[in-house]
Amino acid sequence: MEPLKYIGKRIPEIYAWAKVTGEAPFTDDLRLPGLLFGKILRSPHAHARIRSINTSRALELPGVVTVMTGTDTPGIKYVAQISDMYPLAIDKVRYVGDPVAAVAAETEEIAEEALALIEVDYEPLPAVFDPCEALLDGAPLIHEDRINNLVLNMKRDFGNVDEGFAQSDRVFEDQFSTQAVPHCNMEPRSSAAWKNPDGVLQIWTGTQSPYFVRKEVAHVCNLPISSVQVMEVHCGGGFGSRSKYCEDEGVTALLAIRSGRPVRITFTREEEMTTTRIRHPFILRIKTGVKLDGTLMAREMQVIVDKGAYCHYGPAVTGYAAGTAASSYRIPHFRFNGDIVYTNKQAGGPFRGFGAPQAIFAIESQLDEIAEVLGIDPLELRVKNANRSGDLTPCGWAITTCGLEECLEKVSQAINWKERQKGPKEGRYRQGKGLATAIHVSGSNVFPDGEFSAIELKMFIDGRVSVYKGSGDTGTWANTVITQIVAEELQLPMESIRLISMDTETTPQSLGSFASRVAFEDGNAAKMAAAQLKTFLLESAAAALQVSMDALFLQDGMIVYREDPSKTLSYGDSVFRSPRTVGHILTSAYHYVPPTVRLTPKGYANVSAAYAFSAQGAEVVVDTQTGEIQVKRLVVAQDVGKALNPIAVEGQIEGALAQGMGYALTEELIVDRTTGKVITDCLDRIMLPTAMDIPDESIFLVETQDPEGPYGAKGVGEIGLNPTAAAIANAIYDAVGFRPHKLPIKAEEVYFFLHPEKR
Amino acid sequence: MEPLKYIGKRIPEIYAWAKVTGEAPFTDDLRLPGLLFGKILRSPHAHARIRSINTSRALELPGVVTVMTGTDTPGIKYVAQISDMYPLAIDKVRYVGDPVAAVAAETEEIAEEALALIEVDYEPLPAVFDPCEALLDGAPLIHEDRINNLVLNMKRDFGNVDEGFAQSDRVFEDQFSTQAVPHCNMEPRSSAAWKNPDGVLQIWTGTQSPYFVRKEVAHVCNLPISSVQVMEVHCGGGFGSRSKYCEDEGVTALLAIRSGRPVRITFTREEEMTTTRIRHPFILRIKTGVKLDGTLMAREMQVIVDKGAYCHYGPAVTGYAAGTAASSYRIPHFRFNGDIVYTNKQAGGPFRGFGAPQAIFAIESQLDEIAEVLGIDPLELRVKNANRSGDLTPCGWAITTCGLEECLEKVSQAINWKERQKGPKEGRYRQGKGLATAIHVSGSNVFPDGEFSAIELKMFIDGRVSVYKGSGDTGTWANTVITQIVAEELQLPMESIRLISMDTETTPQSLGSFASRVAFEDGNAAKMAAAQLKTFLLESAAAALQVSMDALFLQDGMIVYREDPSKTLSYGDSVFRSPRTVGHILTSAYHYVPPTVRLTPKGYANVSAAYAFSAQGAEVVVDTQTGEIQVKRLVVAQDVGKALNPIAVEGQIEGALAQGMGYALTEELIVDRTTGKVITDCLDRIMLPTAMDIPDESIFLVETQDPEGPYGAKGVGEIGLNPTAAAIANAIYDAVGFRPHKLPIKAEEVYFFLHPEKR
Repeated sequence: MEPLKYIGKRIPEIYAWAKVTGEAPFTDDLRLPGLLFGKILRSPHAHARIRSINTSRALELPGVVTVMTGTDTPGIKYVAQISDMYPLAIDKVRYVGDPVAAVAAETEEIAEEALALIEVDYEPLPAVFDPCEALLDGAPLIHEDRINNLVLNMKRDFGNVDEGFAQSDRVFEDQFSTQAVPHCNMEPRSSAAWKNPDGVLQIWTGTQSPYFVRKEVAHVCNLPISSVQVMEVHCGGGFGSRSKYCEDEGVTALLAIRSGRPVRITFTREEEMTTTRIRHPFILRIKTGVKLDGTLMAREMQVIVDKGAYCHYGPAVTGYAAGTAASSYRIPHFRFNGDIVYTNKQAGGPFRGFGAPQAIFAIESQLDEIAEVLGIDPLELRVKNANRSGDLTPCGWAITTCGLEECLEKVSQAINWKERQKGPKEGRYRQGKGLATAIHVSGSNVFPDGEFSAIELKMFIDGRVSVYKGSGDTGTWANTVITQIVAEELQLPMESIRLISMDTETTPQSLGSFASRVAFEDGNAAKMAAAQLKTFLLESAAAALQVSMDALFLQDGMIVYREDPSKTLSYGDSVFRSPRTVGHILTSAYHYVPPTVRLTPKGYANVSAAYAFSAQGAEVVVDTQTGEIQVKRLVVAQDVGKALNPIAVEGQIEGALAQGMGYALTEELIVDRTTGKVITDCLDRIMLPTAMDIPDESIFLVETQDPEGPYGAKGVGEIGLNPTAAAIANAIYDAVGFRPHKLPIKAEEVYFFLHPEKR
Repeated sequence: MEPLKYIGKRIPEIYAWAKVTGEAPFTDDLRLPGLLFGKILRSPHAHARIRSINTSRALELPGVVTVMTGTDTPGIKYVAQISDMYPLAIDKVRYVGDPVAAVAAETEEIAEEALALIEVDYEPLPAVFDPCEALLDGAPLIHEDRINNLVLNMKRDFGNVDEGFAQSDRVFEDQFSTQAVPHCNMEPRSSAAWKNPDGVLQIWTGTQSPYFVRKEVAHVCNLPISSVQVMEVHCGGGFGSRSKYCEDEGVTALLAIRSGRPVRITFTREEEMTTTRIRHPFILRIKTGVKLDGTLMAREMQVIVDKGAYCHYGPAVTGYAAGTAASSYRIPHFRFNGDIVYTNKQAGGPFRGFGAPQAIFAIESQLDEIAEVLGIDPLELRVKNANRSGDLTPCGWAITTCGLEECLEKVSQAINWKERQKGPKEGRYRQGKGLATAIHVSGSNVFPDGEFSAIELKMFIDGRVSVYKGSGDTGTWANTVITQIVAEELQLPMESIRLISMDTETTPQSLGSFASRVAFEDGNAAKMAAAQLKTFLLESAAAALQVSMDALFLQDGMIVYREDPSKTLSYGDSVFRSPRTVGHILTSAYHYVPPTVRLTPKGYANVSAAYAFSAQGAEVVVDTQTGEIQVKRLVVAQDVGKALNPIAVEGQIEGALAQGMGYALTEELIVDRTTGKVITDCLDRIMLPTAMDIPDESIFLVETQDPEGPYGAKGVGEIGLNPTAAAIANAIYDAVGFRPHKLPIKAEEVYFFLHPEKR
């Protein structure tokens, strides 16, 4: 096999120049003729009945074109997983920020002014903010059709957990809890829409999943999906928040239809922080049975998921937490019980990791507890129980390749695990080290739309190629990596390849950019489409040069005869001569369906074609006088299958570590328990780690050459975040003996643990 | 065969609503972020050397971003047929209006003001405006490399003309001349360009031929064609003026590159009238030998083509005039001599009819003269010599189907030709009737880029279809007709079909919208692509329903089992199930190459797969006191092969008649012979016929069912104009005995003919 020329190389992002110069158009940069500015009026109450809305004063304001309330819309709820939210509230509001009315006006200022003129008569209702309280009889009912505010109860039962516990020497039970966190995208939500002269509602939106957006917008606007087109723009971060649909998209579309003009809504930072989907807070009870030698025998996990006011994709997130808990380490028996509970708060949704960070924080914290009690080194305990190639987890995940042992080995070496100081430490500043691991999918076959990616390639008679890709690129380098794959297969410089992404009318459909699937699934589609195009080129050149196809090879835009390299044909000439060429374009397309099984209602299936693994090590220093925790170093060894572009993979991991560290220590969406208002409504209040906070990082890429992934690659987008909080928590325990049961881990709690007399 | 459901039906234009409501975006409607407004400084001299240009004062004007002269450009001439024009003049200007410098500024007003601040030092040179004078030794030389200002001399010689004359009983020699006419598009030229973040120069322009535009713009900007993308906008008329490229496109592109921002140039009406390409004035000497029974024996045509200052597509126009003269009526021997001559005037270019209206005016006028001298009825003379199916004309045009006789029959009946009053008329208002005919191609294989059209279809899982079409639609209903063809083949309502036209990066390449080729060639490509898609649908449905493909038929989005019509599958489901489907899209494409032969240097080839024919009758009334000519009625019978959409075909013919009548009687681009300035620089001075001037019209569509055309269709775009002037001229002669030898036919000439004493 020829050595790889583009794959595995540190190639810069294809949009880097456009992004740093500001040339890359984001939604808010679009200038549409006659553009109106949309604004949303939001509920000031956490729970209230809408008695009436009077929009007449707002409508009279010069420059206001449209004012719209829920009753002016088709009155259709979003599909989501459970259909429970209108684009604009009808009858009731359920959290502070619930959209109540919308305005489109000639300027942003007029739209803002008009909001203040809309008179809403509310009847406040008692609100509930705690999921445990919400489950009690007599709690305020948020959605009338959901008894005890229970969205749904999710059960999983694999193997025989009771028998597993019976066979265990020791059983450990612990409780953990995690907080709400907003995604903190650098680009706030922005969407623009207009009904074009063909009657098509065109929408520009920074999204991970244009086809989900098309479906949801068409639905709430009561249009066939054929009348909605979602188009490409650059996107300033997704992290799951844009992986399905965003509520501004529906309102923008409805305003555009009603006003007959283009409309754009761009959120303020406050709206972005207080009304978009967040990471679900979990309360986790975990019970694990072990043999005295450390062998894991059975695990039971019970979670209460604080859903907030609307369901969105909460069940999927909860189900994935269950899958992760069933599959982290070899464990023969597993049981799960999840209560997903409405509260009068901002709703949760997909967020990088998709339920796994919550579960892993509990699992990995408890694992260290078990190790201590049994007197086994935490590293040994992990290696002993680590997943290995060929494993089938209790919920049906079939692990083809697994580099977890190697990852643990690399990380423990890098942090000098074996030489660490064990037991209690001395002095004001105490160092500690912690380990944690994660497993994650590369695409996940759980959605009714099916699991697939498709890529279309068009080669022109000048030898260039256009790549049509249906999924977006939110800044993950997905489009760069897909371009590399096409470059590799066709032996064509990156500059000769243009990537056209995300236009629901032009690009072949792919499921979307989430579940760490794009490099894996779009990558396979691109590889196979390019391989087919290569065959077409060779076939045409063979006829032209009157030699056999096998005697030819591709080289930088030329097809060369192996036995006489002066005998060549350019790609362009080969395209021109090919009988398959139409209108001077040679097309090749591939529809990739991974060899996976759709998740059953009982939660059992091999949902991904490949599983990625990560081991992380954290080194912290705790100031015993203040409780302050400083992360000195984070070390990652990640089974990436094959790093298609090491810069891209390292970038994903570095970003994930920062996000994981914020999750561990600082980030928390705090809601005032009397008003229901979000207190942390801006970036400085949410305590996002900045570049100054980032510790030393060491990243080791473990390449296990997955047999199904393109060139052996696995998904890398999410897993880097999943074990970080647990590794830091374990390091804190190692430093000062404080076991964090709650995220974020606050200095004050460490302080009161060290100085109980001050509490 | 099933009866046709969409073809042949009077279906409204698909853009009608968007156009009448103003929603359809034309180039001037585009709002691009940071758009600059471009303006061109033009020469006030007909011929001058540029000594120097000082742009410093213009550059200092606040709001001016870029000022550019010829030396700031790559200094590359347009390709055209003979490369003789820079985007901005270098060293010399050659007509009043020649582009000398260009400005891009924040507003149109600033750009205009900046033009006045550019100081150009000209050395005026003697100018020549008459092509005969230009050919004389000692005439001012316009392009130094062209002796006697001769662009080129074109010779054609088929058969043995001298022998033909020798065998003739009588030989007729006459001279005619025709005027310059601007296209008078309702939308003045407008083009916008910017270099997008991918480094691609994107151009929006109302064009007939995006691929010609791409080639020319890339060339003058010194870019590979891969760096230029021409995109769709609506277009307010083409008539040939936009069939190759327009000079504003090059300047807009150069300004966009230089300024680094989007730039748009929109012409004023004056610029549109005085600087865009026009219909070439011809001086025609025609010599025809006939037998006493009226049999045409030989024809010789000598033309002097007034090229104006630049060549553009003059040779092609001249060559097509020769082909028309060789092929109008059966004539065994033909010779042609054409001198294409530079003058210091606005340059000619393609214009509906492409040289044929000039030639036909001479041929048909002379034919009436011959008829009179020989004492043969003009109708009989035409029928006797008319082309017939199976004819091969001297220049190689192979006529498969020909409805000319039927057309002549229909027209003569409609105007009561046989019962007309013959000989001299009486009274102040004298009526006259005249006949003329035309032959025209349906696509013409003369360009080096080859003759082909390609169409790609994409069907989605909701059963809709998108049609990708590389040629533009300048208002000819081309996109409507292509949609009808797809609707017919797929038995799908028009509303379920979306047409995406003209994006050089997305749509498969077609040659362009000219030479009456789109319905014929794009139509065939669409029909065959749709037929293939139908096969794919049936194939998939047959597998799903477990019946044979032959047992199924298509009906309004459903595939139905003939033997049990309750057994069906929707198109969408069939797409979803097809193994050919990629990313939920089923694609089919077809590259149509007509069975024609590329024109040889000697002008011999069967350049078109089908030839259309038209007979026209004019009824006029001449006021003998004033010489005023009033056209009372125009009757057309046209061999359209098959009318794919009668409204569209009639619309083409009606528009052509108006244009032909203007050509006959009023329209003339008049140049001041001392200054070289165009006097008729606005629509009211050019005397375009208005709705009030249009006479009664009767249109008969003769359907000869061409074997190659889609559903039997032939091209209909141009031919309707070709014989109109001649028919009117012949009617004037019939009314008052005045034989027009010059277009336009002016009332004053008729008056002086009738009142020679007043001259």
